[in-house]
Amino acid sequence: MKRSGHPRIVVVGASAAGLKAASRARRLLPEASILVLDESASISFGACGLPYYLAGEVDDIRALATTPFQVVRDPKYFDEFKDVEVRIRHRVESLNVGTRTLEVTDLESGARQTVSYDELVLATGSAPKRIPGVGVDAELAGPLKTMEDAVRLRRALVQGAIKSIVLVGAGALGCELAEAFRISWGCEVGIVEAAGCVLPEMLDAELGSVVQRHLAENKVLVECGHPVTHVSHSKGQIAVDTESATVFGDRVIFAIGVTPRAQLAREAGIELGALGGIRIDEQMRTSAPHVYAAGDCVEVRSAVHGDPLLLPLGSIAVRQGRVVGDNLAGRASKLSSVAGSAILRVFDLNVASTGLTRAAAERRGMSVSCVWGTFSDVPHYYPGGNELFLAMVYEQGSERLVGLQAVGKADVLRSIDVFGNLLLKRGTIEDLIDAEFGYAPPYSSPLDPLHELAALAIAQEREGLRAIAPSESLRGRLVVDVRQLTETDEHPFRCSHLLPVPLGELRKCMDELPESEMVLMCEKGPRAIEAARFLMGMGRRNICYAGGGRALREASCCIRSS
Amino acid sequence: MKRSGHPRIVVVGASAAGLKAASRARRLLPEASILVLDESASISFGACGLPYYLAGEVDDIRALATTPFQVVRDPKYFDEFKDVEVRIRHRVESLNVGTRTLEVTDLESGARQTVSYDELVLATGSAPKRIPGVGVDAELAGPLKTMEDAVRLRRALVQGAIKSIVLVGAGALGCELAEAFRISWGCEVGIVEAAGCVLPEMLDAELGSVVQRHLAENKVLVECGHPVTHVSHSKGQIAVDTESATVFGDRVIFAIGVTPRAQLAREAGIELGALGGIRIDEQMRTSAPHVYAAGDCVEVRSAVHGDPLLLPLGSIAVRQGRVVGDNLAGRASKLSSVAGSAILRVFDLNVASTGLTRAAAERRGMSVSCVWGTFSDVPHYYPGGNELFLAMVYEQGSERLVGLQAVGKADVLRSIDVFGNLLLKRGTIEDLIDAEFGYAPPYSSPLDPLHELAALAIAQEREGLRAIAPSESLRGRLVVDVRQLTETDEHPFRCSHLLPVPLGELRKCMDELPESEMVLMCEKGPRAIEAARFLMGMGRRNICYAGGGRALREASCCIRSS
Repeated sequence: MKRSGHPRIVVVGASAAGLKAASRARRLLPEASILVLDESASISFGACGLPYYLAGEVDDIRALATTPFQVVRDPKYFDEFKDVEVRIRHRVESLNVGTRTLEVTDLESGARQTVSYDELVLATGSAPKRIPGVGVDAELAGPLKTMEDAVRLRRALVQGAIKSIVLVGAGALGCELAEAFRISWGCEVGIVEAAGCVLPEMLDAELGSVVQRHLAENKVLVECGHPVTHVSHSKGQIAVDTESATVFGDRVIFAIGVTPRAQLAREAGIELGALGGIRIDEQMRTSAPHVYAAGDCVEVRSAVHGDPLLLPLGSIAVRQGRVVGDNLAGRASKLSSVAGSAILRVFDLNVASTGLTRAAAERRGMSVSCVWGTFSDVPHYYPGGNELFLAMVYEQGSERLVGLQAVGKADVLRSIDVFGNLLLKRGTIEDLIDAEFGYAPPYSSPLDPLHELAALAIAQEREGLRAIAPSESLRGRLVVDVRQLTETDEHPFRCSHLLPVPLGELRKCMDELPESEMVLMCEKGPRAIEAARFLMGMGRRNICYAGGGRALREASCCIRSS
Repeated sequence: MKRSGHPRIVVVGASAAGLKAASRARRLLPEASILVLDESASISFGACGLPYYLAGEVDDIRALATTPFQVVRDPKYFDEFKDVEVRIRHRVESLNVGTRTLEVTDLESGARQTVSYDELVLATGSAPKRIPGVGVDAELAGPLKTMEDAVRLRRALVQGAIKSIVLVGAGALGCELAEAFRISWGCEVGIVEAAGCVLPEMLDAELGSVVQRHLAENKVLVECGHPVTHVSHSKGQIAVDTESATVFGDRVIFAIGVTPRAQLAREAGIELGALGGIRIDEQMRTSAPHVYAAGDCVEVRSAVHGDPLLLPLGSIAVRQGRVVGDNLAGRASKLSSVAGSAILRVFDLNVASTGLTRAAAERRGMSVSCVWGTFSDVPHYYPGGNELFLAMVYEQGSERLVGLQAVGKADVLRSIDVFGNLLLKRGTIEDLIDAEFGYAPPYSSPLDPLHELAALAIAQEREGLRAIAPSESLRGRLVVDVRQLTETDEHPFRCSHLLPVPLGELRKCMDELPESEMVLMCEKGPRAIEAARFLMGMGRRNICYAGGGRALREASCCIRSS
């Protein structure tokens, strides 16, 4: 097995990170012996594709585990195409980093063997988080993790055995599944989320509530703010209880995130981090010599705050695999810190974020501010424009960029990727002002939304032009609506104290405006900002504007679907 | 007019840069007097929208000159909404930087007056380049620059007076117009381009020829490689002669680019740069005190090579206007260097680039290399994926990023914008390897195309894994096609010496392969690269792979439309 004189590399886990590390090592070390072990029979499949298989957008589950040229990525493939030996249904029972050996069980035959290595890669992945004390069979109330889980669920859907479903957790997977069950199968769908709003890891409440409203408009019942206390059989269905409600379904899927599978490492005496993932250095080495780790089982470093982070994303895993492969071959390749860019589709909305939310930043004790904006992806005169809501978080004083959130029918990924890569460079608002964007009317605007947000942040930070959060109540405040009267007729804004003064008449009407606090409001933001600047320039105090305008206030005004 | 004790700011040119500078200055200097002069009657219109008005996608020309809330951006608008005085039909005849005065003619009344300033902004824009000695009336053979030009042309199209059109210049405007005339009006369209391929400023021949072929498939006659020598009336049409052909049309539009309008500055003794634009420093000050310049009339600085550049783009002009406005108000704001990101649509293709082409870099004496790739925007299992061709240029040795070109039915702007912003940071291939991208199946792939290109560049630069350009002839070379046999049947690749060896059988067949030079080939690239690495690892020499695979070779194989 071992090619004499060349290293023997063993990888535990035939997932994205492990297989990438193995393939990369093979490219650089033609003579090495490379063995990948995995306890499962289904390896190297695109787990992110499971919601789309369930929805029927992906017809055949096997497509998730084949190459673009229709070859199944099984052990034979890895042997023939990658020159990497993969043994499936082989469970690693223990690791001895002193003797550099693994105890392995062949799950088919039951045979035990000792496998030795020169270099080891732990790519043991993650496991779905579980809710303790669920008194229901996992097939009726369990996670969605494997291809088998998905096949079983889809079969039940095809057979009409699932008319209603409860999703526990309104993270990315929960929201993707809500769409799949609702649109493709017409199921009644309920989501139960412990946090105050959907997608709490990605979005603050302002944009989170845009998504939450959209879910409600698509007849998804969303119950936020209370953790699940009990799951049980009741009247032929599964009942999911929280302190505030009980939601019933034929099936329950737990989508409350994952935890690193680090038990093998821990039992071998390898250091874990505070978050429970395997601790690695920049070259992805663990605390044990000759042992690397990569993928969902490790802690990465945040580019925003420099501290460890769990970021179980396929795109990050692939990058890590490459770094490990390089290091196995003696190249001192490093994993840079990460921004945490993520995207998902929720019915007709594209939803993405990068960096930290305001809530996450404040939990870390950072002093941050936000600006919001409503944009169209193309110039107003060009047909077919789509709306885009953005929220940007930055650090007060240093003006360091902290995070960006994007929701809309427009493309959101371009903004997120540009911003995410600025985060990797520890960018500031000035860097965003200096950013460059391609422009032509079918694609974008001459003044990019990120430029506009940067300008708002500068105005807020240096000139005291304060944005009112779309979630902040306007009760008791005077709102000056500076839209044209045709607009206020068509899309009235309702609040207790409203004064319509079209921007073009503001100078003339100045003396009639009260001296009290005023919130300037327009459709999307720019005119309110113009008006606020004008009034501040005229010496008025207590001036602020409604961030994101009427459009974002309306889109984020939650409607309970119950 | 002058508000006592406050600066009087005069802006020449009511275009994107000039009006942005004026508006920004007003926001920061509520008490300043701000006057904008423009010789034209139609100001502040979205010139980039003209092709879409001609195509009928934009119905009413006035839409290009209104705000998103339907107010015409005329002098009244700027007065009421922006508190900026704009005088149209006022031509600035001369500038005296010593006395800080302008001689101005009111084109309506013919009256002359002297206007004095404390701070001046030259935003005189650009003028279409002309071909000398054209013996035809400009209405029949002229540029497309103003709204009036566009209205006249569309009227003629509606009346059926234009059945055929010749576009001189296959730059962005020429290609956009080809689509407009062909699709919306069914005109016979010919493009005459002096350079060897279409879009020579944006694309090298490899991707340029993909666009050229697409134009031909859409029945646009493309004549490249010879400049226009003569334009004349002939047989009731206009004849455009080059050394190699004569192309006839009912109308001819010159779309050969623009030159800075810098005459006013030059006559006032203000320094111009070598490219004919006004020379400015980082704060956008000209060589004359109290005189700024912004927009198409200035030279900017390239982030790639640090030298001056003409970049007449609306998106750059708006950024410049902001910087000038800041400086007028005493904020030492700076214009960063620029990447030169640009995008356009050509029928069904999205086309974009940033930085330098290989040809442009080589003209500057840089030692650069390229890699190419064919990608799908989403994972292969997800339905509706679109193809994307990328070409990346980097500097040998330093591994500095130099440029990126993108063509495809897939989105191209995200890649261009991420790359363009890395260029601004003087990024290297390593920075691209470290870049982060949001991933979910409906939007993107776990391994982003830019990561793949970066890996190819590293392999080429450090491991000698050479890409053969899609434009390079394979005649007389042995091509080893490592695709599956089903693929070679379905999409055969034709060349003189072809050996089909599916990648999975390569190791077995190794001994049967000749010792001679081999070009590895697959559908998109990755398998050929895998095979090439394997063979190199086995000690074979003279191994290279076909960059972008069969797909890019086929897409870039030009078909003459004649």
